Amino acid sequence: MTHSMYTLSVPVFKQMLTALKAIMAQADAHAAEKNIEADALLQARLFPDMFPLIKQVQVAADFARGISARLAGAEVPAHEGTEKTFAELDTLLSRTLDFLDGIRPEQFENSASREILLRPGTPKEKKLSGQSYLANYGLPQFFFHVTTAYAILRHNGLPIGKRDYMGTY
Amino acid sequence: MTHSMYTLSVPVFKQMLTALKAIMAQADAHAAEKNIEADALLQARLFPDMFPLIKQVQVAADFARGISARLAGAEVPAHEGTEKTFAELDTLLSRTLDFLDGIRPEQFENSASREILLRPGTPKEKKLSGQSYLANYGLPQFFFHVTTAYAILRHNGLPIGKRDYMGTY
Repeated sequence: MTHSMYTLSVPVFKQMLTALKAIMAQADAHAAEKNIEADALLQARLFPDMFPLIKQVQVAADFARGISARLAGAEVPAHEGTEKTFAELDTLLSRTLDFLDGIRPEQFENSASREILLRPGTPKEKKLSGQSYLANYGLPQFFFHVTTAYAILRHNGLPIGKRDYMGTY
Repeated sequence: MTHSMYTLSVPVFKQMLTALKAIMAQADAHAAEKNIEADALLQARLFPDMFPLIKQVQVAADFARGISARLAGAEVPAHEGTEKTFAELDTLLSRTLDFLDGIRPEQFENSASREILLRPGTPKEKKLSGQSYLANYGLPQFFFHVTTAYAILRHNGLPIGKRDYMGTY
């Protein structure tokens, strides 16, 4: 049986981002069909001081990449976050999935005890074990942004359901 | 080091439900202070065919209890879901946290390979290993409802932030 630290991170991110990619494709098609400006969805927020859809997707991808890389002991890939369209977000999600595909389960061998430094060099710097980093920080953050992206689209009338959010499991 | 299957479930549920309990207490106080009817928040939805806040909280608690019990090989505690007020939801969350406190890490010893049957006896019955049940079904479901509860309250103007959602880690 593969190490739980791998099973509970990389394949979860792949499942959820593959599902999110399909949801975003539906949103794109829905906007085109209903003559909705893409930005009416991409810039939609649930409250003025929350992130818009586009940023929720970017941050979800950031967490998937960052958490996986840190736990695997690999370099965290740089990402500018300059996407502005559905097509660019789709490319971002594809690239993120490719990156996740490239991570091997063996890289997670010692990930539970690997020391992770959150917000290094800032006053809110915090040291966590890999296990706690994934359980108590990474997964809550990742799911927050994936779910909020879904919630923004539901709130704006996209006809999707929980099944679309869950993806294939 | 405690088994990842325990660390990535019970303590995560405790962290998030403790945070949700505090958020709901803030919502209750906010409603009282602003002369908002409790039901204006408790029955709020992001879209007409989504669950209202009260149900999001109930389902989050259901998943925390059910996932933990199944992985621990314990009986899933029955729950009627009859809560109608902030006070009753607070009691539900307290009882759920008490239940989680009673689960011992040792009960998770063989949980990764324990066979879990989803929706038994229905056409959508599905067999998963404990590991896949937690990673690909349980955590996505749990976080969906916790995040949506948060999103409903943010959308309705409750002055909370990501820190409140994350709780103590």
